[in-house]
Amino acid sequence: MNASRVRGDLRQRLLEAAQSTIAASGLSGVSARGLAEQAGCSVTGIYRVFGDIDSLILEVNLATLLLFESSLVEIRATGFHRTPEGARAALVRLALAYLDFALAHPLRWRALFEFRWSRADQPVPSWYTAEQGRLFSHIEAPLRAIRPDLGEEALVTLARSLFSVTHGLVSLGLDQRLGSISPDVLVSQIEVVVGAMAVGLAQTAPRPAQAMRARAARPSPAAGDGEG
Amino acid sequence: MNASRVRGDLRQRLLEAAQSTIAASGLSGVSARGLAEQAGCSVTGIYRVFGDIDSLILEVNLATLLLFESSLVEIRATGFHRTPEGARAALVRLALAYLDFALAHPLRWRALFEFRWSRADQPVPSWYTAEQGRLFSHIEAPLRAIRPDLGEEALVTLARSLFSVTHGLVSLGLDQRLGSISPDVLVSQIEVVVGAMAVGLAQTAPRPAQAMRARAARPSPAAGDGEG
Repeated sequence: MNASRVRGDLRQRLLEAAQSTIAASGLSGVSARGLAEQAGCSVTGIYRVFGDIDSLILEVNLATLLLFESSLVEIRATGFHRTPEGARAALVRLALAYLDFALAHPLRWRALFEFRWSRADQPVPSWYTAEQGRLFSHIEAPLRAIRPDLGEEALVTLARSLFSVTHGLVSLGLDQRLGSISPDVLVSQIEVVVGAMAVGLAQTAPRPAQAMRARAARPSPAAGDGEG
Repeated sequence: MNASRVRGDLRQRLLEAAQSTIAASGLSGVSARGLAEQAGCSVTGIYRVFGDIDSLILEVNLATLLLFESSLVEIRATGFHRTPEGARAALVRLALAYLDFALAHPLRWRALFEFRWSRADQPVPSWYTAEQGRLFSHIEAPLRAIRPDLGEEALVTLARSLFSVTHGLVSLGLDQRLGSISPDVLVSQIEVVVGAMAVGLAQTAPRPAQAMRARAARPSPAAGDGEG
């Protein structure tokens, strides 16, 4: 085997070691020494392949995000965007999918939020934030059907807020932080709260008639040469 | 000074030491040795007064909850319960008060959620959970005005969910977990999301006419001797 093939294998072994350690013992179970032992390399070997432990953990977290995203494909396939009612149902289903994922992979899910990128000199790498962005696009799509009046930036911000809402319900709920709550009650609370939010967001949107008047008052793209 | 007076003074000194340590360095800055040094006692002295460090930290967290509660008195005084519109505005103001508190006391606020009661043999003491419950009653009151159809248990559960929603927005927002977000944008997102939720909850409630019909169909408390 040539050097790059050996390095590729080691990279894979280290990723698998980190992922199984996080799944079994959480982020706090990860140590350079432990990973090196599992992957059959020296501690220096880790730094040679990944630069630092943070980058290795972030790659495991990326794999966790991709695993969660794969669970959303079915929801996307329902064609929710065709009606506001479908879009409201899709937002609730996305939130429930998040709860399911947190229940199925509790320590990998926790590691997404416990991990702090510690290199103050460098931002979180774009290959990670790009995948985060792709995940939020699953929320943006039904939101767009509910609030066609919002511009892209407002949609992107609101999608992150809706994710935060769900995360708050799931994380405080699963941690039993506010008293004991069963998974069944948590499911029904997500349905009620996220459902109400979707209804309220549609309700507080400008009425179609208003929006049409607003559009009529502006020069049309054709007439206005793309401006306005 | 008699022994109980001395113990009372030491108790106060230890509480102040723990509170100022958490406010300055967070929960991770608390150590028995450090507290003993600040309070001028031995480590054994801490255990003699509080039994364990957990109970001491929980008392500091109780003081944090009480401090937050004192900031809510003004909102309660607005008489929001008189109209559903007032109640909706009150829910948004409560959420904004939570953001303000987290901004003003970031490490004390974080300590409320980072702390884990580690004594598996004993539940979290009732003097702490009772204060938590009192705090939620501030959310239950306007919720009751919006959803008079809900029973007490449903209201109590829903109030905790609304708190979780706000906590999700505030904690992921202040941590910049989903990308950078300014406090101004966070304020407007809380207004939009909590406001929409309040509107949606009112919208999904049974209509007064339905509720009246439902009541009419049941035997009245007078006729039915308190049953039904």
